[in-house]
Amino acid sequence: MPEPIETAQPGDLVQLVGLSHKHFIIQLQSGRELQTHRGILAHDNLIGKRWGSQVLSHLGAPFYLLQPALGDLVTTTRRTTQILYPKDIGFILISMGIGPGQHVVEAGTGSGAMTTALAHTVGNQGHVTTYEIRDEMINLARKNITRLGMLDRVTFKHKDISEGFDETNIIALFMDIPKPETCISQVKHTLVSGGFFCCIVPTSNQVIQLLPTLREEGFAFIEVCELMLRYYKPVSQRFRPADRMIAHTGFLVFARSIIPSEDIEKFELKNKE
Amino acid sequence: MPEPIETAQPGDLVQLVGLSHKHFIIQLQSGRELQTHRGILAHDNLIGKRWGSQVLSHLGAPFYLLQPALGDLVTTTRRTTQILYPKDIGFILISMGIGPGQHVVEAGTGSGAMTTALAHTVGNQGHVTTYEIRDEMINLARKNITRLGMLDRVTFKHKDISEGFDETNIIALFMDIPKPETCISQVKHTLVSGGFFCCIVPTSNQVIQLLPTLREEGFAFIEVCELMLRYYKPVSQRFRPADRMIAHTGFLVFARSIIPSEDIEKFELKNKE
Amino acid sequence: MPEPIETAQPGDLVQLVGLSHKHFIIQLQSGRELQTHRGILAHDNLIGKRWGSQVLSHLGAPFYLLQPALGDLVTTTRRTTQILYPKDIGFILISMGIGPGQHVVEAGTGSGAMTTALAHTVGNQGHVTTYEIRDEMINLARKNITRLGMLDRVTFKHKDISEGFDETNIIALFMDIPKPETCISQVKHTLVSGGFFCCIVPTSNQVIQLLPTLREEGFAFIEVCELMLRYYKPVSQRFRPADRMIAHTGFLVFARSIIPSEDIEKFELKNKE
Amino acid sequence: MPEPIETAQPGDLVQLVGLSHKHFIIQLQSGRELQTHRGILAHDNLIGKRWGSQVLSHLGAPFYLLQPALGDLVTTTRRTTQILYPKDIGFILISMGIGPGQHVVEAGTGSGAMTTALAHTVGNQGHVTTYEIRDEMINLARKNITRLGMLDRVTFKHKDISEGFDETNIIALFMDIPKPETCISQVKHTLVSGGFFCCIVPTSNQVIQLLPTLREEGFAFIEVCELMLRYYKPVSQRFRPADRMIAHTGFLVFARSIIPSEDIEKFELKNKE
Repeated sequence: MPEPIETAQPGDLVQLVGLSHKHFIIQLQSGRELQTHRGILAHDNLIGKRWGSQVLSHLGAPFYLLQPALGDLVTTTRRTTQILYPKDIGFILISMGIGPGQHVVEAGTGSGAMTTALAHTVGNQGHVTTYEIRDEMINLARKNITRLGMLDRVTFKHKDISEGFDETNIIALFMDIPKPETCISQVKHTLVSGGFFCCIVPTSNQVIQLLPTLREEGFAFIEVCELMLRYYKPVSQRFRPADRMIAHTGFLVFARSIIPSEDIEKFELKNKE
Repeated sequence: MPEPIETAQPGDLVQLVGLSHKHFIIQLQSGRELQTHRGILAHDNLIGKRWGSQVLSHLGAPFYLLQPALGDLVTTTRRTTQILYPKDIGFILISMGIGPGQHVVEAGTGSGAMTTALAHTVGNQGHVTTYEIRDEMINLARKNITRLGMLDRVTFKHKDISEGFDETNIIALFMDIPKPETCISQVKHTLVSGGFFCCIVPTSNQVIQLLPTLREEGFAFIEVCELMLRYYKPVSQRFRPADRMIAHTGFLVFARSIIPSEDIEKFELKNKE
Repeated sequence: MPEPIETAQPGDLVQLVGLSHKHFIIQLQSGRELQTHRGILAHDNLIGKRWGSQVLSHLGAPFYLLQPALGDLVTTTRRTTQILYPKDIGFILISMGIGPGQHVVEAGTGSGAMTTALAHTVGNQGHVTTYEIRDEMINLARKNITRLGMLDRVTFKHKDISEGFDETNIIALFMDIPKPETCISQVKHTLVSGGFFCCIVPTSNQVIQLLPTLREEGFAFIEVCELMLRYYKPVSQRFRPADRMIAHTGFLVFARSIIPSEDIEKFELKNKE
Repeated sequence: MPEPIETAQPGDLVQLVGLSHKHFIIQLQSGRELQTHRGILAHDNLIGKRWGSQVLSHLGAPFYLLQPALGDLVTTTRRTTQILYPKDIGFILISMGIGPGQHVVEAGTGSGAMTTALAHTVGNQGHVTTYEIRDEMINLARKNITRLGMLDRVTFKHKDISEGFDETNIIALFMDIPKPETCISQVKHTLVSGGFFCCIVPTSNQVIQLLPTLREEGFAFIEVCELMLRYYKPVSQRFRPADRMIAHTGFLVFARSIIPSEDIEKFELKNKE
């Protein structure tokens, strides 16, 4: 367990936050430059600078040099599709029990935001296998993961999951596709008995479609929820919520792969209130 | 990366969910018994059973045998104090960038729910140092962590943090104490430059007290938020939110330890809307 | 406009709030008694007492004597069905433009909570016609309305609305029935051109069923929303939200009866964000 | 109780909704014109048109002709200050028991949105007295109220309420000023015993200041709450919440003027959960 050091080093991911609140995440590499709308920052001028300090572009525009958190990595993922938000990702990871050393599967790589979160959380002793049918999405996600230095933890598969997953005995599978109800028997086959399933869908209609299929295919302990994140203005003299907020990202559906018994319906966890 | 196996084995943490929705988390140990209000379950009858299968108590009461997730571990922590909820923990972990191999510090161990989450997330290559002034809390938290088999990842310190932390160059510090504003200079000294600070407080008054101290002590990029988790009744024909929900657990305050510049106030991330 | 007087008088509706927070709404009548679990209160001992003062039962239990608000009237309606909440009623009244002197129609009287709110708001120069097919509901609602002294403002009709409403040129119609989509053409016929329609339904499925029917039957400017009411602990030193809240009562669906044009779809008010 | 007629008439308030969702509320008057960015609408071309029908500007731009609801009136109030939202107004009116024939007082007229709502609800047999210290606000509010044809129901007072209200025995007083805690004894003097008080404040700090003053001045049954309004996309095939919402308008504080007893603290309505 090496101690964090006080200064940014070659190979480090760094977050540069500008006055306009725009921020960049880059991997430091001697000789390179970051082009911004407020001027150029040479990586060599950043290497050796203390984390948390202010640096200037060649035009004199100030930026702060920070270590990025996972939450920053997933929100700055270059993307063409809707992204998962940190509020959802954090709750999914903890609810599915994702942790260091696991091998987990993702269905629907998209731009790789959740892939990033999974790879970060399983660590260098774990692995993520992620499926995607769209070529251009795989390329984008691979670039994003590469940029973050986690390519060795991720296997990308260009395959239609309606034909099934290659893996078996998987402890956790996360799905982000438009019609999850069409691939639940495939999920069942892939998960170890007792394993964790989660998917995110934006509409009520998709939840309504998915629920009966989950029960038919031998899933139970089904829970559906949504998370609302409300920011406050961090002003001591006038402490109050921000004026506006994101009202909806998606419904989260969680389920466990079980060996059905006669009385399984009675077991359904009471709806949380 | 050993593959998950299909059956529960000695040493495994198992979750037993009964018809009344009450659930138990135990570590399997040959020769032991779990006493429930619905009869006794001998560990030897559970060892070798498939995950996700139904087992019966000596009175014939059915239970489901499941692998617990981190979310289950933190909510079943034996406790005497208010607990952190998975919705908050997940967002804290991702926002602070907690990951495998890190050494992080916690101020205010309490019953050990967050300690558990931190220890799970940093993995067996990381470490958690946690401070608490109440003897009985340390004992309770130690029991909880021991039960989960993560004692070697955690150092408990019985010490008043107003006298300072022993560690330096720490990347992330989480605080759950009644008057966080009294210990911010100590946090500053402990965190590596750029490091992550988060605390949770239940009342507006505490946030109002904390904000100016954070700025005075050289923290910036301050964000305050709260998360609301709403469950839905998982019924396809009548899909609707549950009738009641938990309305409030706490306000989350995030900040970064920075090297102040003249124009730092302009850098404050715009309040998220 | 008679001035409010300081003391409770015969015929007044009074609200008695006890220490256990249980409250009663009664109409004062000389010679009568209110039986409570904390003793008896003779109406004659209440008549002439100042509003806002404390009164005692024959067992010495204290109660506060207050003027009830409409919000109190609708929540203490004796009921056998789910009730509308003040948060929803207030928003419905203002969104439909309900005001003094109007004649409005209600479909689905239930226990009369909304009937009460409508009758209160249209005043003694307005009128409410309310339809219900269940005998026992009409009787209950009539008792509730009678108790509140507003029987002359309300016409109860024991009739199946799928056979149509008797009224025409109605400015506003509120509906609270399980299958609103089955009666929309009847609503169209009853409303004056441009008139206001609102219904409340508890499930997503009902909204999904209702929306296309509304458009087919010549309604536009459709809006769907829900209101969440969060109470705070009114404690100055520890100001914070209450721990729990009601998470869901129903979805509100608003629409206007219009004369369709070719480009009506373009007119749909942009979804509020 | 005259029946609504099907066509717009001189003197009617009409709402014109354009394709860009911009809407106008005007009072029809023969000979006048409405100038819009999409062309001119002559009032004479609107008079006699059916409500709910489409009309065209002189440039051929389509508009829908609708009866405005109170909710529309308060949101289109011309204003220079922050406005009250229909969600809050509706709940305030029902919680304070505002109804036809009452005389109510408002402290802080602002642009007159709440004045409008109060005047609409008390009807032509009731009255609203509203206080404001800023000349330009009184003028603006008077114009807004005049435009809506309710000037005879409203008395505007240009007076500093810290010097007291002229009225006594008032059943309900609504306050929207920056420092409500400075005028509570004045409110106490104005309200009839048992009367209703409500104020709206945007920040936690203001609630924290106000609560102890209310108790000291003889108010009880204090409740603090906020309302969150979430719109849904009204699309049957993809029913889901809108992406963004207004996260905060203000905290509502309700209280009753009471005659304190020794045990009044025990009476405090339990915080709603």
